[in-house]
Amino acid sequence: MTGPHLVIVGGGFAGLTVARDLRHAPIKITLIDRSNHHLFQPLLYQVATAGLSPANIATPIRAILSGQKNVEIMMTEVTGVDTKNHLVLTQDRAIQYTQLVLATGSTYHFFGHDHWEPYTRGLKTLVDATAIRRKILLSFEKAEVETNPARKKFLLTFVLVGGGPTGVEMAGSIAELAHQALKSDFHHIDPKMLRIVLIEAGDRILATFPESLALRATQRLQAMGVEIQTCTRVQDINAEGVRWGDTRIDANTVIWTAGVVASPAGKWLGAQLDPLGRVRVNPDLTLPGHPEIFVIGDTACVHQDEKPLPGVAPVAMQQGTYVAKVIIRRLRGKLKPRPFRYLNKGNLATVGRSFAIADLGSFRIAGAFAWLTWLVVHIYYLIGFKNRLLVLIEWAWAYFTFQRGARLIPEGENSKNTD
Amino acid sequence: MTGPHLVIVGGGFAGLTVARDLRHAPIKITLIDRSNHHLFQPLLYQVATAGLSPANIATPIRAILSGQKNVEIMMTEVTGVDTKNHLVLTQDRAIQYTQLVLATGSTYHFFGHDHWEPYTRGLKTLVDATAIRRKILLSFEKAEVETNPARKKFLLTFVLVGGGPTGVEMAGSIAELAHQALKSDFHHIDPKMLRIVLIEAGDRILATFPESLALRATQRLQAMGVEIQTCTRVQDINAEGVRWGDTRIDANTVIWTAGVVASPAGKWLGAQLDPLGRVRVNPDLTLPGHPEIFVIGDTACVHQDEKPLPGVAPVAMQQGTYVAKVIIRRLRGKLKPRPFRYLNKGNLATVGRSFAIADLGSFRIAGAFAWLTWLVVHIYYLIGFKNRLLVLIEWAWAYFTFQRGARLIPEGENSKNTD
Repeated sequence: MTGPHLVIVGGGFAGLTVARDLRHAPIKITLIDRSNHHLFQPLLYQVATAGLSPANIATPIRAILSGQKNVEIMMTEVTGVDTKNHLVLTQDRAIQYTQLVLATGSTYHFFGHDHWEPYTRGLKTLVDATAIRRKILLSFEKAEVETNPARKKFLLTFVLVGGGPTGVEMAGSIAELAHQALKSDFHHIDPKMLRIVLIEAGDRILATFPESLALRATQRLQAMGVEIQTCTRVQDINAEGVRWGDTRIDANTVIWTAGVVASPAGKWLGAQLDPLGRVRVNPDLTLPGHPEIFVIGDTACVHQDEKPLPGVAPVAMQQGTYVAKVIIRRLRGKLKPRPFRYLNKGNLATVGRSFAIADLGSFRIAGAFAWLTWLVVHIYYLIGFKNRLLVLIEWAWAYFTFQRGARLIPEGENSKNTD
Repeated sequence: MTGPHLVIVGGGFAGLTVARDLRHAPIKITLIDRSNHHLFQPLLYQVATAGLSPANIATPIRAILSGQKNVEIMMTEVTGVDTKNHLVLTQDRAIQYTQLVLATGSTYHFFGHDHWEPYTRGLKTLVDATAIRRKILLSFEKAEVETNPARKKFLLTFVLVGGGPTGVEMAGSIAELAHQALKSDFHHIDPKMLRIVLIEAGDRILATFPESLALRATQRLQAMGVEIQTCTRVQDINAEGVRWGDTRIDANTVIWTAGVVASPAGKWLGAQLDPLGRVRVNPDLTLPGHPEIFVIGDTACVHQDEKPLPGVAPVAMQQGTYVAKVIIRRLRGKLKPRPFRYLNKGNLATVGRSFAIADLGSFRIAGAFAWLTWLVVHIYYLIGFKNRLLVLIEWAWAYFTFQRGARLIPEGENSKNTD
């Protein structure tokens, strides 16, 4: 090895921020991701509900970092880490590191009910999003030609398991898509047959928001025709729908936004994990006993004020910036920095057209102004000038015409698990 | 049955034109398609080479016809036609017609070598296009991390079988994508290793164009580094690449644009077919012995001036307009119209950036002005104001930045046959 070599695993918000913040640092960087693109996950639900195209919210990592001379990008699957010999093991070969950043994100899990997987779908990747879009749009198409009323109702029932921001945003977006589609495009569907149910295990939706804002979101969803079932723990999901206790909801479409679990990075390290599989790290985000290994983003378990930090983009980005600073300090031979501290600038969630809730600490709002804030924040953080422009056009178009831009059902092959 | 009922099978250029041209006619219309969208096939190669997103060139049929009161749309698969009882048989149910239009298009065929199919791919649907895009982009990603030179060369070799407009446009587009990508994004690939080979069985490419224009396109492709093999009939395609006689080209990516065959509509009718499976029709595009059945677009074999009409969008659209006129005349009890006659307004093909050839009868041009003509014509015919705008932005962006807008490799599931 000649000189220091930083290996970053994962091109999400956390890993990408580390690489970008080190653009002027005299260090060789290799960024490894199994996909070729950075995904703007906060808007993934819009791809799933036919508002945006995959390319609108995904940018090739090579394009983002193409001007940065000290970065190499490898598209490959990491299979393990040899912490003793400082090697990242991949499908292709082993790569030696002097410092390592693991930012591999999280995936959905079904609380031990893996047999539910064929009948429901989480929303983490573009393939998930297009599969959900296909499932929703096909449900309408099939209902249009269906003559059996029970079967028609089954096709027109959409269940969302999990009342966090993703579940709420999906529910609002499906409700809008459905009402618009049933009004203009389908002639053999009675809108009264449509049913959208949001199921939450806790006693209210949007647990991470203040109660007053969650209440406003609840009212808004109910006004849009979404049924909300709180204090409800789903006991079975199968081809017919979902069940808990004696209650059954027959539904063709069941979307899962309830539980996430960290990706296997923790197992690679043989590290101490929390119940969600996240790695317990030091206050400076390094692995205990391994100052050369950082674990950040959804893969890390970091407590602040006695609560674990949520798995959201701002946490991941701030952690990435922090780690880049630590690495620069080390290059300069400086002392350890102060522990990482997350600065919460606020939480936002939309509920359909022109309505959002915003929790900006002491400043809490719900309505159109919050929605405008949401819009500006998301456009601002979306990577790439062209994507910002295209997404704005899609949104303006959708806003003024009530039409969605990406109502495609690709034929055939990516239909696994979805119809 | 109450009143006349026209059933149209196929929402491509031909079928959609019939439906739109009958918007004021007092006739009930049912349009059946197995996909939910009309596809602008002339730009499909741009999706395959990462220039455009699927949604840019595909519009839901329901959206196109949503204002037209006399049309019903069914998304289902047609399985046959009962000509005796005037029934279209579908997966869902049988539908009675008084008049029927079959416009089901064509698919690729391998001249009896169906075992080639796992190793090559035609370009007819959005799934084909995204699979080819995935294959091309993954080849670069794999080549970047490959250390074996022979394997690296294999990954960087792209073979196109078939020197018609689609093959030529794909070859030019892959060459541009490759040169731009190798220049800015990949650091471990020697551009000299790149090889793009266009193989044509006839003695020149672009057989439907005048020889002088085909020569200009040949020169242009060669200047872009594309090797052209004419008078070459491929004898085998397998996982290693293609072979003819003693010649072998090792290639990871083999794209098939050589032969098309009509979809099974002819078999449904038990009709007389030409060698490509197309239905031989009367001069008024009806099936012999069945004045109530029209067959149009790529599914029909129509001779004009002793030559069969080509399977291109303008022929399909003019046939659609003709059939709509015949149906209106019949509704008004008028006489049979004159036979269908195709008016060839010209042929266009692009070869990469700012170069096209245009055959407008006696007026033949090659170069930047032909390319501008190509651009205006395609934007004009692209359905939907928003798609026109978005495609223009993508093209302008690509033109000024040399970057492509849709370089995504979706993970996993739609990878069948492609890597």
